[in-house]
Amino acid sequence: MNPERVAGKLGLSRERLEALHKTVIKRSSWPEPRLWRFDKPASGVEAGTVIFENGEIVHGYPKIRRAMMLGPALNTHFSGNVAVEEKMNGYNVRIVSYHGDLLALTRGGFICPFSTEVARKNLHPRIFEDNPDLVLCGEMVGPDNPYVPKRIYQVKSIEFFLFDLSHKNSKRLMGVARTHELAKEYGIRTAPLLGEFQADRAYPQIVEIVRRLGRAGREGVIIKDSENRVGPVKYTTSESNCSDLQFAFRYYNDNALDFFVSRAVREGFQSVEWGEGPEEFKARALRLGESIIGPLSETIRNKMAGEQIVQQVQIRVRSIQTARDFEQHLRRSGTRAIFDIPEPDGDEYLIHIIKPVMSTNDKTEALVKGQFW
Amino acid sequence: MNPERVAGKLGLSRERLEALHKTVIKRSSWPEPRLWRFDKPASGVEAGTVIFENGEIVHGYPKIRRAMMLGPALNTHFSGNVAVEEKMNGYNVRIVSYHGDLLALTRGGFICPFSTEVARKNLHPRIFEDNPDLVLCGEMVGPDNPYVPKRIYQVKSIEFFLFDLSHKNSKRLMGVARTHELAKEYGIRTAPLLGEFQADRAYPQIVEIVRRLGRAGREGVIIKDSENRVGPVKYTTSESNCSDLQFAFRYYNDNALDFFVSRAVREGFQSVEWGEGPEEFKARALRLGESIIGPLSETIRNKMAGEQIVQQVQIRVRSIQTARDFEQHLRRSGTRAIFDIPEPDGDEYLIHIIKPVMSTNDKTEALVKGQFW
Repeated sequence: MNPERVAGKLGLSRERLEALHKTVIKRSSWPEPRLWRFDKPASGVEAGTVIFENGEIVHGYPKIRRAMMLGPALNTHFSGNVAVEEKMNGYNVRIVSYHGDLLALTRGGFICPFSTEVARKNLHPRIFEDNPDLVLCGEMVGPDNPYVPKRIYQVKSIEFFLFDLSHKNSKRLMGVARTHELAKEYGIRTAPLLGEFQADRAYPQIVEIVRRLGRAGREGVIIKDSENRVGPVKYTTSESNCSDLQFAFRYYNDNALDFFVSRAVREGFQSVEWGEGPEEFKARALRLGESIIGPLSETIRNKMAGEQIVQQVQIRVRSIQTARDFEQHLRRSGTRAIFDIPEPDGDEYLIHIIKPVMSTNDKTEALVKGQFW
Repeated sequence: MNPERVAGKLGLSRERLEALHKTVIKRSSWPEPRLWRFDKPASGVEAGTVIFENGEIVHGYPKIRRAMMLGPALNTHFSGNVAVEEKMNGYNVRIVSYHGDLLALTRGGFICPFSTEVARKNLHPRIFEDNPDLVLCGEMVGPDNPYVPKRIYQVKSIEFFLFDLSHKNSKRLMGVARTHELAKEYGIRTAPLLGEFQADRAYPQIVEIVRRLGRAGREGVIIKDSENRVGPVKYTTSESNCSDLQFAFRYYNDNALDFFVSRAVREGFQSVEWGEGPEEFKARALRLGESIIGPLSETIRNKMAGEQIVQQVQIRVRSIQTARDFEQHLRRSGTRAIFDIPEPDGDEYLIHIIKPVMSTNDKTEALVKGQFW
């Protein structure tokens, strides 16, 4: 690796790169290949940016900005046409080929052994034979998703859904047209493209799409400039905001506080922008209230019945070694997880995973016994 | 002031007291008399503890612990009898006499000029002539309360309600019997005493009291050991939790995040402990949801109508100088406030105060215009 060239490709001086190596750039030597990763954003380089030993760089996937007031956000941010894609609820990965091997990188820039196995199962090797520098940006989605298991998609286990493209050593995302073109060429599943509209007339149509997605329990939309001139914008359904709250309040003492409040605030903005009358407002307030005290009540009742408060997820793998590696991956990410004995299922293994939710578990146990808060 | 004696009365070594003078003990030289105050708790001394120049100490009022699951909390914490007092919704002050002058100390240990005027109006000087070392602990309550204005009490402007007693140079609180005895003797209003019960049979009665207080929009109860052997415990009504949320979400970007979540969690515990059926659960969820998106919607609509998001309170004073001093008091506490021109009202002045809510105001303005979050 030539530090001068790497620095140049990142847009940094060599001195700055060396200084960052002492602070935000971390070594990851497992699983192979070894790499360095940006643990935090720095000097205009996204968090999760990866530098391989041969000097190749995979930039971190940038955070997508959220519209709170959809109409004004559309008008101020976009001109021309916008494409509306479904925002799928899973976890973000970047898939690349390195020395001929396909690898899935997490948002933070780690190689995830489980996602790598899924990607190798889902994607045809020819994609990278034809395009060795390609970076596939997408979402891992489905019931065997060990972070956000969801049964709302047409996915049996877990699958990769492409939503953008990039290339090694480049920050640039290729945009919606190029993404769907390549997906078609190589048979890659994509986040559904739900329509294309003139930006200044898109508002009512997007609201209609968001309402429909909400009724189906889906997360929301990503709105993209059709010409890829400005960055994308996200906007979520009320049902997704409430479903986030349900999850968070089930494990109320283990979640960041801003998670709760941000979802509530989104509901306020959507209610006002959609001009809700008393009935709709009441239905939204009830949905919001239930998504808070429903899971709280369940957690408290479970604890009163003597149960441990845990989160249960599962994965399905071809090789038991992948599960072992994934266990190691979770451990190094600081996540405690207990892996059950693999159950053979066809040519795969189903593995139940229990994540203890220690803080909520212990707090609830203490409070139920009469301790103070 | 003799540092050796002050340290001894605080239960500290002289060296420790000197070290604290460099960190948590702060000087307050206005309004007179000058004093030192504990800005934070340290070495077993409560925050808000005050040391006067003559060496007299007024200990900070200790935090009252909150029951989340009322029944088990009663059983594990109390034995014998408990007295149930109303928890009034205002702000906590300690009233003392210093060199013959009555002073109101805030929770943080400042002399509050406004509360001092109210206390001098409310309390007979004989109380302190007879008991020069007395510390009256109580709540300032009413519509002219500049922090938590409430019209739910039988109070025209603002009044002091006694809830405990202490003495200078002592940490000990005198408890419910002595408090009401002294209140009766000197005609001091107290937080209402709502009943006295055997601890192990108190739960259903306290729940009934809490339900009744809730219907009247009141805050909740303080449960005290009748013999003053263990510390008091607080428990609040659902209506008060929701009213806190209403206030907090009106100014959603200016409030601490844990404020929101703690209130929601209380609702979950109360719902489970009270064994609510589907109808009651739904009513609670709706009340909770409305107390979140109601004020949010109002703030957003006000901003869309071009209004500034501010908090409006008022005080009523005998002397305009008190209002000027109170303005100075708010400023030194870091609170921005705009005082309107005093309106004469009988032998007093009514003064409207506007507190800008800058963060919520600016954030809402930006979001309404289409900026991202």
